[in-house]
Amino acid sequence: MTELKQKILAAVEDDLNDIEKALNDNLTPYLDLVSEVAGHLLFSGGKRLRPLLMVLSARLCGYTGSYDKTFSTALEYLHTATLLHDDLVDDATMRRGKQVAHANWGNSITVLVGDYLLARALSIAAGTGILRVIQILAELTENMSQGEVHQLMRKGDINLKEEEYLEVIRRKTAMLFEAACRVSAVLADAPRETENSLAEYGYNLGIAFQMADDLFDYTLTTSDLGKKVGADLREGKLTLPVIHALGNASNGDREAMIQIIRNQDFSDEEFRALVVLLDKHGGLSYTSEVAASYIDNAKTSLSIFNPSPTKDIMIDIADYALKRKI
Amino acid sequence: MTELKQKILAAVEDDLNDIEKALNDNLTPYLDLVSEVAGHLLFSGGKRLRPLLMVLSARLCGYTGSYDKTFSTALEYLHTATLLHDDLVDDATMRRGKQVAHANWGNSITVLVGDYLLARALSIAAGTGILRVIQILAELTENMSQGEVHQLMRKGDINLKEEEYLEVIRRKTAMLFEAACRVSAVLADAPRETENSLAEYGYNLGIAFQMADDLFDYTLTTSDLGKKVGADLREGKLTLPVIHALGNASNGDREAMIQIIRNQDFSDEEFRALVVLLDKHGGLSYTSEVAASYIDNAKTSLSIFNPSPTKDIMIDIADYALKRKI
Repeated sequence: MTELKQKILAAVEDDLNDIEKALNDNLTPYLDLVSEVAGHLLFSGGKRLRPLLMVLSARLCGYTGSYDKTFSTALEYLHTATLLHDDLVDDATMRRGKQVAHANWGNSITVLVGDYLLARALSIAAGTGILRVIQILAELTENMSQGEVHQLMRKGDINLKEEEYLEVIRRKTAMLFEAACRVSAVLADAPRETENSLAEYGYNLGIAFQMADDLFDYTLTTSDLGKKVGADLREGKLTLPVIHALGNASNGDREAMIQIIRNQDFSDEEFRALVVLLDKHGGLSYTSEVAASYIDNAKTSLSIFNPSPTKDIMIDIADYALKRKI
Repeated sequence: MTELKQKILAAVEDDLNDIEKALNDNLTPYLDLVSEVAGHLLFSGGKRLRPLLMVLSARLCGYTGSYDKTFSTALEYLHTATLLHDDLVDDATMRRGKQVAHANWGNSITVLVGDYLLARALSIAAGTGILRVIQILAELTENMSQGEVHQLMRKGDINLKEEEYLEVIRRKTAMLFEAACRVSAVLADAPRETENSLAEYGYNLGIAFQMADDLFDYTLTTSDLGKKVGADLREGKLTLPVIHALGNASNGDREAMIQIIRNQDFSDEEFRALVVLLDKHGGLSYTSEVAASYIDNAKTSLSIFNPSPTKDIMIDIADYALKRKI
């Protein structure tokens, strides 16, 4: 474990324990099977980043109520619901080193348990008694599903441009981070300026986080990643490292890359050749740089807050988003 | 068209037109593909029973606001979302005489568009600004997905009892009817007694409606039904006609029925033989009688309301639930 990760984990240990307990306590289906399927993914070593960001943001706003941990589960349930459905959509086989839910229980149960988690998240949001919190989460859910549809529509399209990639990851990932931070401010009854700063922190962090994830698919090993490297490309997902390298490459190298991309059954050797080309044409370094600039924006967004241990952790988390190994 | 149906349609023509317009106006994805997939099922000749019940119930409570038609779309979007996911879960091929969405666009898009509609329904509920309305719909969504899981868990189980069947249809169908009527009273700020009476009307109507649907699978022709008769049984869904007949039959007939049920690839001839046995052992008449008693309960629930044209239509709709041919 890196030093930074250790530092963060030590600082938020109690919060993570409370969140874990809340995730258990608030999952209350009447059918054991629903708990089992939801729990398979929900309790498989997720980082709890979204609920944690919510809890920390609320603290930064001076929130002193007792509903933050309970409410934070809505964000993790929503995230888990989308992962269940996305793994199915992508026909994925592994997630966090485990077999995906639909491989164990079939597509049908997985769709329905995803629906349950989605509804549970909105029920918990309703439990805040604050309309704007509910509106933010409901709109977020609309956007997330559309982001996924958008990604699916562009599957395998080698002409995908950076702007459209950004539009997709904005909806499918960044808006959930943004919402996690924004609703905290609403819950804490913070001024709109504070709310917007936190939302901006979340949004920028979310974009960078997704870019880092997209990079991992080319730079990590399968065992670090918990799923086979190159999975994005096998699923036809063109991400920033590829988009940038394709735009930058000479005709010969561009054709070589396209050939590997188009053959979704590429060998490990072909995949390694592709990574070399991505690197040669700046796809990897460019993605790192862009992600780093979003992290800078995220940290700058916190400048309106006075120095505090909570602010320090949120800055550490921003740095960690890029430095992590999954 | 039956006389009763004509009478109802004449009475609610304006409402249905308004609801249709609202369904168009409130479906606002940024992707055309999402409109297209959602619209394929949403505008395929559904009865609009759930939004209509909502609008009529609100009127019965003296609601004079202007949000009822807009809000009623939440119930139809939610219903459509569950149909999209259920058809996928059941691996259905036809719905309302058309190919199902997942056969046209694939499972992935269908899951995601279902998610979008589900989220859209909750966004619209949030638009009422009334917390209880949102809580009712969010809890309903939790229950509906669990009802479907429950049904799936008991797939093909010839020992399914009437009580468990009732538990399933309560969640998967009746609670949506109940919620449609209940939220109207909340929207109209009606007293709790009024709200509970309307909820009871909706609940009883919903149970009867589902029982009638389950009966249609054995008593209608494929062209009336808009999908192949016997589909429930082919999907392993044991409904009241079968449950009752199995419980009532002598050993020989029981075994004959079980043999057909277990062979989900049964021929049309075998299916006709099964229907004869269901009839012989009272499965069809019993289901009609039980459904009729729920309809009586539904109508009785309206007794607290003074006579009015709106009340008359709601009584007609209750009668129509059994007398309809789909």
